[in-house]
Amino acid sequence: MHSLEFFRLQTRNEVLSFYPRFAAVGVEDVDLGKAGGRVLAKDLAAPEEVPSFHRASMDGFAVRAGDSFGATPGLPQYLEIRGEVTMGEVPAGEVGPGEAWRIATGGMLPQGADAVVMVEYTNEMPDGTLEVRRPVAPGENVLHPGEDVKAEEVLFPAGKHLRSQDIGLLAALGVTRVEVRRRPRVTVLSSGDEIVPITRKPAPGRVRDANAFLVAAQVMEGGGLPRLKGIVPDDYAALKAVLAESLEEAELILISGGSSVGTRDLTLKAIQDLPGAEILVHGVAIRPGKPTILADIAGKPLLGLPGHPASAAVVMQVLGRPLLQRLAGWAENSPPWGGTFQARLSRNLAGATGREDFVRVRLRLENDVLWADPVLGPSGLLSPLVKSDGLVIVPLGVEGLFREEPVTVHLF
Amino acid sequence: MHSLEFFRLQTRNEVLSFYPRFAAVGVEDVDLGKAGGRVLAKDLAAPEEVPSFHRASMDGFAVRAGDSFGATPGLPQYLEIRGEVTMGEVPAGEVGPGEAWRIATGGMLPQGADAVVMVEYTNEMPDGTLEVRRPVAPGENVLHPGEDVKAEEVLFPAGKHLRSQDIGLLAALGVTRVEVRRRPRVTVLSSGDEIVPITRKPAPGRVRDANAFLVAAQVMEGGGLPRLKGIVPDDYAALKAVLAESLEEAELILISGGSSVGTRDLTLKAIQDLPGAEILVHGVAIRPGKPTILADIAGKPLLGLPGHPASAAVVMQVLGRPLLQRLAGWAENSPPWGGTFQARLSRNLAGATGREDFVRVRLRLENDVLWADPVLGPSGLLSPLVKSDGLVIVPLGVEGLFREEPVTVHLF
Repeated sequence: MHSLEFFRLQTRNEVLSFYPRFAAVGVEDVDLGKAGGRVLAKDLAAPEEVPSFHRASMDGFAVRAGDSFGATPGLPQYLEIRGEVTMGEVPAGEVGPGEAWRIATGGMLPQGADAVVMVEYTNEMPDGTLEVRRPVAPGENVLHPGEDVKAEEVLFPAGKHLRSQDIGLLAALGVTRVEVRRRPRVTVLSSGDEIVPITRKPAPGRVRDANAFLVAAQVMEGGGLPRLKGIVPDDYAALKAVLAESLEEAELILISGGSSVGTRDLTLKAIQDLPGAEILVHGVAIRPGKPTILADIAGKPLLGLPGHPASAAVVMQVLGRPLLQRLAGWAENSPPWGGTFQARLSRNLAGATGREDFVRVRLRLENDVLWADPVLGPSGLLSPLVKSDGLVIVPLGVEGLFREEPVTVHLF
Repeated sequence: MHSLEFFRLQTRNEVLSFYPRFAAVGVEDVDLGKAGGRVLAKDLAAPEEVPSFHRASMDGFAVRAGDSFGATPGLPQYLEIRGEVTMGEVPAGEVGPGEAWRIATGGMLPQGADAVVMVEYTNEMPDGTLEVRRPVAPGENVLHPGEDVKAEEVLFPAGKHLRSQDIGLLAALGVTRVEVRRRPRVTVLSSGDEIVPITRKPAPGRVRDANAFLVAAQVMEGGGLPRLKGIVPDDYAALKAVLAESLEEAELILISGGSSVGTRDLTLKAIQDLPGAEILVHGVAIRPGKPTILADIAGKPLLGLPGHPASAAVVMQVLGRPLLQRLAGWAENSPPWGGTFQARLSRNLAGATGREDFVRVRLRLENDVLWADPVLGPSGLLSPLVKSDGLVIVPLGVEGLFREEPVTVHLF
């Protein structure tokens, strides 16, 4: 028996539990306008407070709240309109007792005033008198300094993935550049003597290198920078040389193996013989994706993907993306999945004995019920994956799922 | 009463129903390696069939299926191993009656053979005899020419958003370049005399231009190319000039209005006076986002966003993203939302009378129940949005939602 056969299949969680040993990539400084989708390298504290002054949050009149007390539609309070706040300027005066200043949303509250009466609850008389039909409490319709953000407050922890609203808040604070993690550089390799570049018409018995393009597209979706390094022949020295070179250039190596046993063994041996290499995982209890390899080569991860493109795609989604997120410095508690949908299974599904089963499904809405239709077919085919919207997981140790059962669909 | 006040509030669906009048942007040819996330400009037919030859889908032995009939563990069939398929090569011979050839997954089936017996169900004897313990049906463990993709078959319709598996399939077919829609060019403008560039320390009463950065980040997330054109003063001539210039440069104009009534009126008048302009929507029955404007300016859309960044963010998500998708040529039936989660509301929520209410929520997992915690706060604040994971919709005409009610959370 081959020594490598001693590896037992590991569960998905066991594989994921190795990831913390890999360090996040380095840091770079980027313009705020380019920081969307990037990951913060360190905690970011607010350099100042927001808002920086008392602002009206509604269109209306700045008043002393006490002057409005007891006002009702039948028995309004009457105030004198004495001024108007110009947008973007400091009001040139004070709101005295019994007085009101016209103010627009975002305007600076004049001295003396402590609330804004919404324009809907007022009536202006021709003589400049304001009828107030509803009382306001002190502070009502006013944003206070520091109410949105306090100065020095930690806004975002290291590892935060910046979304558009986060960028907006940073802009409001005058943060023009942010320290984020670089995009992880990822070498994408294919091995197998039957594989030809996609630009070539394959001779009989050969196939084009679909994996590299599929995997590179997933790397880009996951925020990495893929580098296609082409096809490695089934040759120990060539494999070892290209792996060594890749380790110099990248933070992650993705190699999709030839599907034959001989190629797999050759790849494993080439990996093992690299300085500082340790094979952590050889075989995962998932379907598809059993022949997956995880290695630590002097601190850098290598993920060996199955040769079938459809299997490689699932392994990338389930194991590759979380690894990329780890390298990209995402906080530990980031959800590993994109969106999910709740749906009902449209037919019985048998699970895979001893393996977690990832079943491709297509979503279909019928009479307000969202159905998940399993898209079956051999794992060697790409078209079922192309026709699918996501994956349903049949957990390890579960014999199967029943028709009409509610399931979670993990969208691609 | 101002003439513009005649506009009644329109529902979200009424706004969306205007979008088909806007044409998709032009077409460009890109390398397959850059086509991920792009939208196909025309139907794409398969230039050839996949696979192009009979391939083994399992490791094992190529046989004539009939020779395995009746095989059981107790009463195996015995075949003679006569050859081995070399990966990527045409087998140099034929499988005759009573014969078997060793074959790996992906290997080309030799003439004569019509099935593959999995290696698990065989036993090799020292003399080259193969013990077969299970019968195979004709075609079993074999992928047939055209089984994945038929030549000439329409693989993807125009408007298809290309995912990684779609790129993989195109690579398998030797498609190296694809015709996709250009990324829509989007001009992002801010108006209001109180707004200063984010690089400046605002004087008292003024605020930084958070909207432009927030909106530009959303445009990028939506696949568009934002161009920040800065802050326009509250001046009719200046506004009209910058809008006219923007129409030359972009396919979509996003202008976030100053929040004061005067600024809004000025913006509307500048839009209306452009050649071929028609105001389609002035006021939408959503909260936040009521002051939203939609105009058609000689065939190009302009979306006027509220001045509050938090309101602008919601309008971009709810109305801006679908408009961007329309321009980017997405097929009509594309889901307008990113992922959703089913959760339970952790407190009662009152709706907004006469408006569809978009309530910011934060997701929290507690004892296996996913809770949606409403994140309340005035719409003038950005921090509640930053603390949220998504939106819950309280539909038009519904008074509110109850604590513990199941809700759909639309993730940001």
